[in-house]
This record gives sequence, structure tokens and C-alpha cells, in this order.
Amino acid sequence: MRKPIVFLGTLGADEEAAFLSALSSALPEENIRSFGSLTAAQRTEVEIAIVANPDPAEVALLPRLAWIQSVWAGVERIVRDLGARGVPIVRLVDPELARTMAEATLAWTYYLQRDMPAYRRQQEARIWQPHAYHSPAETTVGLLGMGALGIAAAERLHQAGFRVAAWSRSPKALPASLTVDGAFAGANGLPQLLSLSDIVICLLPLTAETPGLLSAPQLAAMKPGAALMNFGRGPVVATNDLIAALDTGQLSHAVLDVFDIEPLPVTSPLWRHPSVTVLPHISGPTNPRTAAAVVAGNVRAYRRTGQVPEAVDITRGY
Amino acid sequence: MRKPIVFLGTLGADEEAAFLSALSSALPEENIRSFGSLTAAQRTEVEIAIVANPDPAEVALLPRLAWIQSVWAGVERIVRDLGARGVPIVRLVDPELARTMAEATLAWTYYLQRDMPAYRRQQEARIWQPHAYHSPAETTVGLLGMGALGIAAAERLHQAGFRVAAWSRSPKALPASLTVDGAFAGANGLPQLLSLSDIVICLLPLTAETPGLLSAPQLAAMKPGAALMNFGRGPVVATNDLIAALDTGQLSHAVLDVFDIEPLPVTSPLWRHPSVTVLPHISGPTNPRTAAAVVAGNVRAYRRTGQVPEAVDITRGY
Repeated sequence: MRKPIVFLGTLGADEEAAFLSALSSALPEENIRSFGSLTAAQRTEVEIAIVANPDPAEVALLPRLAWIQSVWAGVERIVRDLGARGVPIVRLVDPELARTMAEATLAWTYYLQRDMPAYRRQQEARIWQPHAYHSPAETTVGLLGMGALGIAAAERLHQAGFRVAAWSRSPKALPASLTVDGAFAGANGLPQLLSLSDIVICLLPLTAETPGLLSAPQLAAMKPGAALMNFGRGPVVATNDLIAALDTGQLSHAVLDVFDIEPLPVTSPLWRHPSVTVLPHISGPTNPRTAAAVVAGNVRAYRRTGQVPEAVDITRGY
Repeated sequence: MRKPIVFLGTLGADEEAAFLSALSSALPEENIRSFGSLTAAQRTEVEIAIVANPDPAEVALLPRLAWIQSVWAGVERIVRDLGARGVPIVRLVDPELARTMAEATLAWTYYLQRDMPAYRRQQEARIWQPHAYHSPAETTVGLLGMGALGIAAAERLHQAGFRVAAWSRSPKALPASLTVDGAFAGANGLPQLLSLSDIVICLLPLTAETPGLLSAPQLAAMKPGAALMNFGRGPVVATNDLIAALDTGQLSHAVLDVFDIEPLPVTSPLWRHPSVTVLPHISGPTNPRTAAAVVAGNVRAYRRTGQVPEAVDITRGY
């Protein structure tokens, strides 16, 4: 029997069962076990941990760990909790997640371009009032973050006819197949992108560099009446500054899928703000089946070559 | 000077000015005039009327009319008011309108597939609850009406990964380039399409055949919990039957852009129904500029050949 691979997570029982089942189906040749089912002796054999919000105290009980595979794309929490230990952390890069997230950016871009929040308010007041239509060709969507998710989103939005502007923290070569109407990078490039975008979509991870990246000065640099979506991580946007910008009308609307604290506390003013759409972190759900297939590829490559898959750069945070 | 072409419409002053300006730009060689600016003698010279909700009494004052060009795609009102006179009526077939309407079907399909109405209700109650995600590949969209708009919508939805089923009143050959997962026609085909669609989109015109086409028996034939969009004409859907189907939960939601009476009267229960999204007839707005370009093509072909463009079949109604 192969040495066990452990699945470690603080998930609901149904969700944990879905991951264990998907992983066992994708890796029938492996012995996939929940942490609780391992004896102390078996724990010392574990080389690979597959994790979903793991308890660091449990991970500390695995002395021979060669690498950690996350089933989320966002890894700021395990990097914070486990990065210092030096065990390579591999994050999930699932094409299905990129597809789902790209679809979310298009779906919620239509929500704004087609004025759905305003028509809802009109319905509540029983007002029949068509608004001028602005086509995708007249609408610039600015994307912050050009990793796998940002690239997939840019492709999707461009294909739908929107003008797309892209920003990344450091200059990076975009795929030759990708057409964007503007590419910007770094601190100097950010206000440029913000000033020409009708809709700004944040897909940035949480790293040492990104908390408060969108604060009062950046929101003031946006086009008057522009809208903001945050599908990255809550702390990248300064919530109080965002509320102030919405209250003055500098921004017309915000679609927020991520927050400083999740679930969003019931006391948060965001819930009742007329210009805010609150979503419960649903834009890019991990699909256990497709995630397991990606993890299986990584595990098999490791078994074949002994090489750990490409890991997160702990200092960079992604 | 050429004989005048008259523009006849009951529109707001701004909208009329936009059409007159766009038509004059698209046809600089013609003498485009508003009805009110013509003398009685000039009226007798008019061969071509370009119309937007015309007053039939004004049209009756044009004795030499060779054909009438509508700037709307829906012509049931002029067919009713003017069809008996025997002057050919040409409806607008504008690729930009097909693009805009196809985009609307995709935008509002995402609205339903991404559960936007349910997340709004949760926000109002400050409930944080992610729902299971259903991908486009798991979602069948059934389209009623496979004219130019239906074909453009089918292409767009298929391209976005949705399963597409198509229905038309009479069997018709679909373009070879169009992939659908099911094609149905006629009275027997309708319940088949309704039974397999998660979302049904009505794009049907108002003809002698279509009032009440979607009444209680057809709504009962739909998949339990399915949703309905009406972007065609209001009377095609029996409003009271729709409300009953929503109240029992047989249908989960309706997105309505067209109504029996427009603007929708403030007394209508649709405004306040929790499972209805009311839109003020905005899914496929006519763009004066692109509409004028299509009209210009028709006018020039007529000047060159003396042949009236392909007209509406009055008995069929489209």
C-alpha cells in the first residue's frame, strides 16, 4: 500500500466528503485519507497534504511533508500560517475555475452595462423609464490582476465586444492570443487604468502589497460614475473609502463578492447600501471534480519525477 | 430636387430629431422631411414613408405611397392599422438590433443562471448563503422564435456554453453554422421544448397565432422551477396564468420586457411580484444610426431597381 496522502480541511462534512470522494476517484491508485483517520505512525509517513483551510496545528503533526497542495486559488491564509515552515505550497490552477471566474466577470459586467440595479430600483418605485443603451464597444472594463484568472477574464470580455484594459503589479508579457485595448503595470500605471475604465474589476490576491491598494486616492482617480467589482480579496479595497465614494456619486455602484471578514457581519453598512450588491463569495467556486483532476495531475507528476510542482513564492504571496 | 421621403412618427421630439438626423446623414442624396413640414402638394408626391408608430390618419394623406419602411422590427401595429390598404410594409432587419437583442438574452440568462434575484433577496435580509453553481453546460435555454433575432440569440448562447433548444411555429432550416442541442416546431414541438428547458426565452412577434401561446397548459408543461423571459410581445404570455405559475412555484422567476399595455400600468401586480423582474421594453433598442444605414440600403436599392424591398406578409404578420 502506498504511503497515505492526507486531506486536511476545516470544511462542512458534505463539502469534505465531496472532496474526498472526488480525490479518490481521480487518484484510484493512491490512498487518500482524512486527517482524523490516520494513526500517529501513519502521520509520520505522509509526504503530500491536500488542504482546504487546514488547521495549522494538524499540519504541524506531519513531520515528513514534502509539499502541500491547496484546493483554493487564494492561498494567503496558508502562506501566513504555514509559509515559515518552508514546505512548498502549491496553489490550485484549475482551468474550470478560470472559466467560472471569467464567466462571473462577464455576467456582472452585463449586470452593470445593462443597468440592472437601476431598473430594479425603478421597479420598486413602479417607474417605467428606459435608459440610453451603451454598447460593449463603448464600455471599457479595467482588470486588476493578470494571472490565469485575469487573462481568462480579459479574453472573455474582449470576445463579448467590451474594450479591455489590463493592469498587473509588475510588467508582464500577456499571451500573444490576447487582445487588450491598453496594458498597464505598477504604481504609475494604476491611475492610468482607473481613469479610462467604466468598470474596474479587482482580481488581485491578498499579499503584503495589496491591502488598501484601492483607497481614497485611487477611487478619486476613477472615471466619475464608474463602477467597481471586487472578486479578489476584501482587504484590497478600503471599505470606508469605497462607501464615501459611492455616497458622493464618484462611483455609481459596487459589486462585492469578497470582504474583510467573511461571512460579512450583519452589522456591516454594505448590506443596506443602495449602491452596493453584496455576494457571498460565489464568483469563482471550486468544483471538487475538476479541482481533483488538476491535483491528480500534480500528484502523478511528483510520483513519476520526484519533483515538487511549481510552488507559491512565499515572499511574493502567490 | 428629388421627391421627398417622409418620416412619420409619434415619438418624443428628441427621438424624432435623432431619426431625422441619422436618416439625412445616411441618405444625403435624398430629401428627408418630417410629415408636418410638407405642403399638401408635396404630400401627393411622396412614394416612400419611413415610420415609427405612425398616425394612420397621416399616412392616409399620402395617396402615391409605393412602400412603407418601419424602423422597428415589430410591425403588428402598422400591419393592423395599415395592412388593409395594400401598400407594402418593410420591417427593420438590422444586424445591430440582432446583436443587441442576442446580448440581452445572454445578459439576462446570466442573471438567472447566476441566481442574481435570489442573492438580491438574501442581501435585503442580510443572509450570507452561497448556492450551488450550475454551469452553462448544465443549463438548457429554450428559444421561441427563430427569425433573425432568434438565430443571433442561439449563436450567442451556444458560444457562451449554454445548451440551446430552438422552436419555431413552422419547421424551418436553421443556418448550417448554428449548433443547437434540439430543434422543434409547431404545436406538437412546443411542449417538448418547454419540458427540457431551464430557461425559456420568448422572442415571438405578435401575429394572429401568438396571443396566449404561453397560457396555463404550456406553463404547466415547463420544467418545475424553470424561468421565463419575454422579450417578444406582451400578449404572447397570458399574464394571469404566469402569475399563478409563479405563485405555486411551478416557475421560479420571470423577466418581462414587454407587456399587454406599455408603459405597464402602475396598478399591475407584476410590478410588486417578488418573482418578476419588470423592464421598460429595453432589451432590443433601435439605434437610429444603424437603423438609418439599413433603411438607406433599402431606399437606394429601390431607386436603382424600382423594386420594393421584401415586405411583411400581411396574412402571416411578420
